[in-house]
Amino acid sequence: MENVNIPARPDLWIRVEEIRLPPPSLRDNTADLDRLLKGIRKSLGTEHIVCDLSIIKRIPSLLREFNYSVKAALFRDGEVWNMVDLFSSEGEDAFYGFAVDLGTTTIVMEMVDIKTGKTVDRATFHNPQIQAGADILSRIHFTSSNGNNLRVLQSLVTDRINVEFKRMAASRVTDPSRFVAMSVAGNTTMTHLFLGITPYWICREPYIPAANRFDGIRASSLGLDMNPLAPVLVFPNVGSYFGGDLIAGIMSSGMTETDEVSLLVDVGTNAEVVIGNSEWLMACAGAAGPALEGGVASMGMIAGPGVIDRVRIEPHGDRFVITTIGNERPVGICGSGLIDLVSELFLAGMIDIRGKFIKEQCKERLQEKDGVAYFILVEEKDSGTGTELTLSQPDIDALIRSKAAMYTILTTITNTVNVPLHSIKTFYVAGTFGSYIDPRSAITIGMLPDLPLSAYVSLGNTSLMGARKALISKEAAVEALRIRDRITYLELNVNQEFMNLFSAAKFLPHTDRALFPSVKERRPGSS
Amino acid sequence: MENVNIPARPDLWIRVEEIRLPPPSLRDNTADLDRLLKGIRKSLGTEHIVCDLSIIKRIPSLLREFNYSVKAALFRDGEVWNMVDLFSSEGEDAFYGFAVDLGTTTIVMEMVDIKTGKTVDRATFHNPQIQAGADILSRIHFTSSNGNNLRVLQSLVTDRINVEFKRMAASRVTDPSRFVAMSVAGNTTMTHLFLGITPYWICREPYIPAANRFDGIRASSLGLDMNPLAPVLVFPNVGSYFGGDLIAGIMSSGMTETDEVSLLVDVGTNAEVVIGNSEWLMACAGAAGPALEGGVASMGMIAGPGVIDRVRIEPHGDRFVITTIGNERPVGICGSGLIDLVSELFLAGMIDIRGKFIKEQCKERLQEKDGVAYFILVEEKDSGTGTELTLSQPDIDALIRSKAAMYTILTTITNTVNVPLHSIKTFYVAGTFGSYIDPRSAITIGMLPDLPLSAYVSLGNTSLMGARKALISKEAAVEALRIRDRITYLELNVNQEFMNLFSAAKFLPHTDRALFPSVKERRPGSS
Repeated sequence: MENVNIPARPDLWIRVEEIRLPPPSLRDNTADLDRLLKGIRKSLGTEHIVCDLSIIKRIPSLLREFNYSVKAALFRDGEVWNMVDLFSSEGEDAFYGFAVDLGTTTIVMEMVDIKTGKTVDRATFHNPQIQAGADILSRIHFTSSNGNNLRVLQSLVTDRINVEFKRMAASRVTDPSRFVAMSVAGNTTMTHLFLGITPYWICREPYIPAANRFDGIRASSLGLDMNPLAPVLVFPNVGSYFGGDLIAGIMSSGMTETDEVSLLVDVGTNAEVVIGNSEWLMACAGAAGPALEGGVASMGMIAGPGVIDRVRIEPHGDRFVITTIGNERPVGICGSGLIDLVSELFLAGMIDIRGKFIKEQCKERLQEKDGVAYFILVEEKDSGTGTELTLSQPDIDALIRSKAAMYTILTTITNTVNVPLHSIKTFYVAGTFGSYIDPRSAITIGMLPDLPLSAYVSLGNTSLMGARKALISKEAAVEALRIRDRITYLELNVNQEFMNLFSAAKFLPHTDRALFPSVKERRPGSS
Repeated sequence: MENVNIPARPDLWIRVEEIRLPPPSLRDNTADLDRLLKGIRKSLGTEHIVCDLSIIKRIPSLLREFNYSVKAALFRDGEVWNMVDLFSSEGEDAFYGFAVDLGTTTIVMEMVDIKTGKTVDRATFHNPQIQAGADILSRIHFTSSNGNNLRVLQSLVTDRINVEFKRMAASRVTDPSRFVAMSVAGNTTMTHLFLGITPYWICREPYIPAANRFDGIRASSLGLDMNPLAPVLVFPNVGSYFGGDLIAGIMSSGMTETDEVSLLVDVGTNAEVVIGNSEWLMACAGAAGPALEGGVASMGMIAGPGVIDRVRIEPHGDRFVITTIGNERPVGICGSGLIDLVSELFLAGMIDIRGKFIKEQCKERLQEKDGVAYFILVEEKDSGTGTELTLSQPDIDALIRSKAAMYTILTTITNTVNVPLHSIKTFYVAGTFGSYIDPRSAITIGMLPDLPLSAYVSLGNTSLMGARKALISKEAAVEALRIRDRITYLELNVNQEFMNLFSAAKFLPHTDRALFPSVKERRPGSS
């Protein structure tokens, strides 16, 4: 697991101060709260401390129970320190924060030791809202079909997170009251749903979110089984189609720290693209479809044991070299495996530039059922599911539409800022699954531009990285807002020009082969 | 009803801003919240506006329902403006705040029109916690006898206040969501009970409150049927025996605005005394007993229709001239009436300097029952209750103990600061009932020092006045904290010296007649 070192103390926005207070006496009959605040002020070196009524109510008994020797968990908001809770200074010493990447398809959460900044536990699971719809639009429609559905979707996620809280607390023999902070990055709709805010207007002209910035949120208002007063830091959005997950990604990439213009792409259900440098940032987003995440293909799955993430076809041969996660028997394919597979099928001449199967090359691997052609990647006997794993013609068609959308968006944004796509020196690939993509395969199918492979930098789950950074460093939370305020959002106009670019990109790798010289070298035969 | 004019606009800490927002369009797809905040920022001229998640959730529908023309209620806390709620800019225009004097015996609440600063309604009622004990101590004991009793006492008050809210809302055909602020002044124990904070340690050595300052309290956390996010400003305490009601009183008196040393006495169940000027303030408090409020006497009542508030005995005669509130038939006597009565009995020679009835002077008005002497003030035929109204020997004894305690406290605090009691130029008398006391009667019984009558300034319900002031002016709330921080609290040491002073004061008016020259003139016969 990756670990982020805790930054210098003054930067922290969550702190646990250990304080020994003099017990009250007739000569020092300061009120309980005042006694405590005096101790904290001395320890923190600040005047402005705010204490919620719910804590004030518990202070008299806690101070006496802990014999005036306490640990106070606090967090900073601007110039004010807010109390989260009081603990005994004896016994257990660990306090935890949680970084959450709130994906439409996958949620990843990390348990971070507040003191060391180290990640001590992690959970990855499907966003349970999927049962109400795989994509954002269907979830928005679900919330508006019934007055209670917004609450239903919110609870699906919080309940699932609470299950992990329970497991994590049990495995470390700790108490959820020691879960004192959370940092969440997600797209605009996921953020709205997480907070119980209607996403209704996000998908309706003129496409506006209810809010782009969320301050002062505490765990109790979201139904999270943490300390009720734990602050929940939510990454701000730019707009309906550009959310906090991207802000977190930009922050993680470091692209705003240099003069050189670089590109960042987050490949998920949506394709989100940012271009810029330390001076400016332009962003746009468009639907790429779930095909890139393996979400459409009949054997598509998210990464997990037995999921195919790499495919190579031996030269001249029918030998398919398949790599699965954990080296287990194959059970499905994830996005990166799918891109590899289509790329290899194309290079082996088994599909044409439209992505259509070439019967003569596929031989007995190509079958048909109900008039739909499909390709057997893994035979029944080798499969981990007991049935063959197949790729259908519609699966390929969907992937081609998705990759064409991605390339068109890249072309459009670079045209807009007048920076040639092929001049980009650093091309960051972010996203839960983006990091697994083999850039060469993505170039082969014409999803990414034909840059030197060294230009591609895979960042991994930048949304989670940003959330983790913001959990530990105050500066990061402030930086997130700074980045947001500097972004110019480019509204993608699906006009005739866009459709022309899109049509030209719906070939492998592209109608304009000159744009992909390296592919020509690898598949000289294709026209 | 008294009215306080609203101060200049910049001083207000509660505001209702009327804002017309441009509706969203494809060219202006700012998020709903951002659109609203932009409008408010422009109107208020400030950047720092905080909006609770519960409001953010409602903003999308409210903005559309109100056609982007809204009134936003906000309150200021330091440099930050906090949203309370959003209203349509059409229709009803009134918003209300409430000033509450949270007395141990009596609660007074005023409904104030936020816009004009005028008091538009008022309610006075017994503190319903009386059913758990008439005095502070018995209520503290009640809370500790059962884990749920603290909540019981809190609910008794909030439920009663909610009854008034309902009545006031109905009588003005308005909605409780328009009740957007409250300001509360009470003694330390009443404040703790109101907030649901245990008062357990207040009456136990070393006598410390849980808290002396309460920030950021909203109506919803107290169970008040107002706007859930309405701020509840609670006056700070100095310590266990010196509460927010006194801070409010000091603020109302203006004694901190001059160099001249003056005295302020709040006569209630407790006798609270403050001496000082613009440079320093010393305070102390001691139990005076409920006798001064008429709370012990068998016919004792709080002020109300038919309650005797003035008593005069015609020279040489048995003719008692009685004044009742509302000129109704007498039903009982309040504190000021009781002080008048005992003073007059003394001047008429019907009781001696120990307060004992003199049979020859009282004649047939003096009766005895079960060995206890009692005096018939109002005969059955003249009474509004259908039974005679009487004053017993123990009633007088209790009053004398109370007045002696008061005088001893006054002597002690002036001795401590080395300012002769008889040199005081301005003597403020505060408290719900304090304002009704006839200073001449109070001097006659030796409760207050023998100053020229012009030195006595009756302030009325200063606790309520302070609460009302703080409701309307931001400066007043800040001033309350400033006053609190400047007070030196004098711990009354009930030692031999105090007991000697107390014993000397247990005579009418005092063992040292030289201290009360004016009384000697009025009752030359007494030795």
